[in-house]
Amino acid sequence: MKKAYIISTGTELLLGNTPDTNSDFIALKLRNLGIKVVGKSTVGDNEDSIKYAFERGFQLADIIISTGGLGPTKDDLTKEVACSVLGCKMELIPEEVECIKEFFARRQRPMPQSNLKQAMFPPESIILKNPLGTAPGMYLSNNGKIIILLPGPPWEMKPLYQQEVEPLLLKEIKRDVEVQVLSKTVKVLGPGESQVEEMLAPLLKDNEDYTIALLAVEGEIHIRITVEGKNEEDSRTKMDDLTGNVIDIMGNNVIGFDEQTLAGSLAEKLQADGLILAIAESCTGGLVSKLITDLPGSSKYLWGSIISYSNEAKKRLLHVKDETLDKFGAVSRETAVEMVRGVIEVSGADAGIAITGIAGPGGGTDEKPVGLVYIAAAGPGFTKVKPMRFVGNREAIRVLAAKSALDLLRRNLISRR
Amino acid sequence: MKKAYIISTGTELLLGNTPDTNSDFIALKLRNLGIKVVGKSTVGDNEDSIKYAFERGFQLADIIISTGGLGPTKDDLTKEVACSVLGCKMELIPEEVECIKEFFARRQRPMPQSNLKQAMFPPESIILKNPLGTAPGMYLSNNGKIIILLPGPPWEMKPLYQQEVEPLLLKEIKRDVEVQVLSKTVKVLGPGESQVEEMLAPLLKDNEDYTIALLAVEGEIHIRITVEGKNEEDSRTKMDDLTGNVIDIMGNNVIGFDEQTLAGSLAEKLQADGLILAIAESCTGGLVSKLITDLPGSSKYLWGSIISYSNEAKKRLLHVKDETLDKFGAVSRETAVEMVRGVIEVSGADAGIAITGIAGPGGGTDEKPVGLVYIAAAGPGFTKVKPMRFVGNREAIRVLAAKSALDLLRRNLISRR
Repeated sequence: MKKAYIISTGTELLLGNTPDTNSDFIALKLRNLGIKVVGKSTVGDNEDSIKYAFERGFQLADIIISTGGLGPTKDDLTKEVACSVLGCKMELIPEEVECIKEFFARRQRPMPQSNLKQAMFPPESIILKNPLGTAPGMYLSNNGKIIILLPGPPWEMKPLYQQEVEPLLLKEIKRDVEVQVLSKTVKVLGPGESQVEEMLAPLLKDNEDYTIALLAVEGEIHIRITVEGKNEEDSRTKMDDLTGNVIDIMGNNVIGFDEQTLAGSLAEKLQADGLILAIAESCTGGLVSKLITDLPGSSKYLWGSIISYSNEAKKRLLHVKDETLDKFGAVSRETAVEMVRGVIEVSGADAGIAITGIAGPGGGTDEKPVGLVYIAAAGPGFTKVKPMRFVGNREAIRVLAAKSALDLLRRNLISRR
Repeated sequence: MKKAYIISTGTELLLGNTPDTNSDFIALKLRNLGIKVVGKSTVGDNEDSIKYAFERGFQLADIIISTGGLGPTKDDLTKEVACSVLGCKMELIPEEVECIKEFFARRQRPMPQSNLKQAMFPPESIILKNPLGTAPGMYLSNNGKIIILLPGPPWEMKPLYQQEVEPLLLKEIKRDVEVQVLSKTVKVLGPGESQVEEMLAPLLKDNEDYTIALLAVEGEIHIRITVEGKNEEDSRTKMDDLTGNVIDIMGNNVIGFDEQTLAGSLAEKLQADGLILAIAESCTGGLVSKLITDLPGSSKYLWGSIISYSNEAKKRLLHVKDETLDKFGAVSRETAVEMVRGVIEVSGADAGIAITGIAGPGGGTDEKPVGLVYIAAAGPGFTKVKPMRFVGNREAIRVLAAKSALDLLRRNLISRR
């Protein structure tokens, strides 16, 4: 498996308000080619830092891809530094001089002399034409290492990568594709990260053929499985076996695969069973509905929602009883049940979700602290309610409450006969 | 000026689909303290790579801040590696063991033995309490270098940085602050980036004393002003003058400053005027309500919302007339007006927002294409409706529609007498 190192050059990338979208774009593309990114470095427009990053890249990787630092100004140093690290001499390439002149002519501007440095390349390199700017990219295969230099502006870099770099890399890796690498993510909700690790312990020990990595993402645990087989078929068989094992162990906690979301799996189940959903939210204030309607086509199974943020709204729209609110309070098992029954009654839907709780930071008491949330789910033949205690800030509590409510309905739809 | 180096640990950050928002957050915060970030490194969960990054950080910087790799599992290595590079011994800290036990007890789950490693620290370090997870952070001042280790999940890291790290750093840098750098962001909605650039042209030319940078963020343009004065008073005077100029030029397009959101400014206006809000959403499916209820204390001015995703819900809950839906369709000026009037009537609220449109990717026609959205706002003495045509994917259309609707109400509340 080829390894790559990504270098992003540009002082602006160290200021915090210019996210480096280039390196994520490249990483994703390389992964699709079965090339493993082993590290990334972001450096300012500083000769020492750029040199150090290239040297590190040479130590770790077969392919070094950098973005930025190809402009005409004095602090654009990437090409000069990369060539000096490689020990390559650059020359003025006449065709490139013409291209740059033409670029300026088309815009009816004089070409500054400084732009000539953008026409300097090692003669053995492949020059990557950049129709969208004056900085061409460079592709150089040298002593078993591949060096790729790309311009920094994402709208120049991305098409250049796609049109010029990817075909060259494809040709390169064809030579030694024997091993097939496949990745799959199994997402679970319920058990914590260390609990998942314990449950998967028999699979997690070091293995030459595969790796399993765990990642905690907003209440979910993502189990990322990567297998390496002799060929595609071998990889697929291994992946299917391993995924099957993980699913057996994790059971109903599995909420989806790869890009699939929890809301997406619930939506699939609703559609498969031909059920219409209605939602009643209090403390999550629309988040559950947003998660469901993030999905295109959600009007097929969503009737609508009532965000009963005030007691008045709970009474008027969901028919929660005055006595219930007086006796048990808005944040109670009883209110959650009346909310879910109310929204089903009002809508005529087949399934419902309701949430009432205290998202904080204010509004908590000793008896009903911030983070206490009652979630309810109802469907054909069942009404379930569950008290939850979430820890975290307002955002975390709302996200966890919304997901737990979606999950409560999902689990009960799956397990009903 | 102190220098900092940022290390992000986590194999998932090398895959391309998990953007590293932590390092940008930290870079921005450090810049506000006048600390210069000289480099960033992203490494997998690999001992050698982490070690190399810390060594590089020590070479270049006074302050090394890392995120990630503090979890309980075997591939969480950051603390161990950082301490070994520093030559510090770790010990089991009894108070931390108690904290972790309590974390699990509150969740009524058993504590896996592996979590104990999260209670190991060098005795000379300051342990940064993490109320949102089991991984505490660490702050260590050692031989003139400051090492700060923070957990990877952004919602744990950000509050921990704000509450624990920033005060410690402020104490540290007090010693050599001479120049006062201040930054402020003015957020506007309405004009595009190049239009804002033209409007601000007189202020945008190079100036020794200040810089103004524009950044397009989800339909908003953020105008970031940075001034450098001889001392704090000088900086404040310059900033006030400059901000005043920007506000004069941008007028009612200004939706907020710094961390303030559009929903936040609308909420302020509603509270100042003593108005209660009710919301009716169709294609945004709860997003407007979510944006409002993201704010703590929103129950003071939000009655609730009706997400009338189906025509049935529009009729039953908002009293949109059958004839209106038949004659003009669900996505029409007429339906938007009936929705906003309906939600005010049902709720008895003082102000209302309504949205109906086609978020796509499906559902568009020649006459009513994807991206067509009617937004309506009503308040004391006014009902406004506006057709909008947004370009982008489903997510972009929904976000832009939600913001435009909030903004329509905000502008009309501001300009009414």
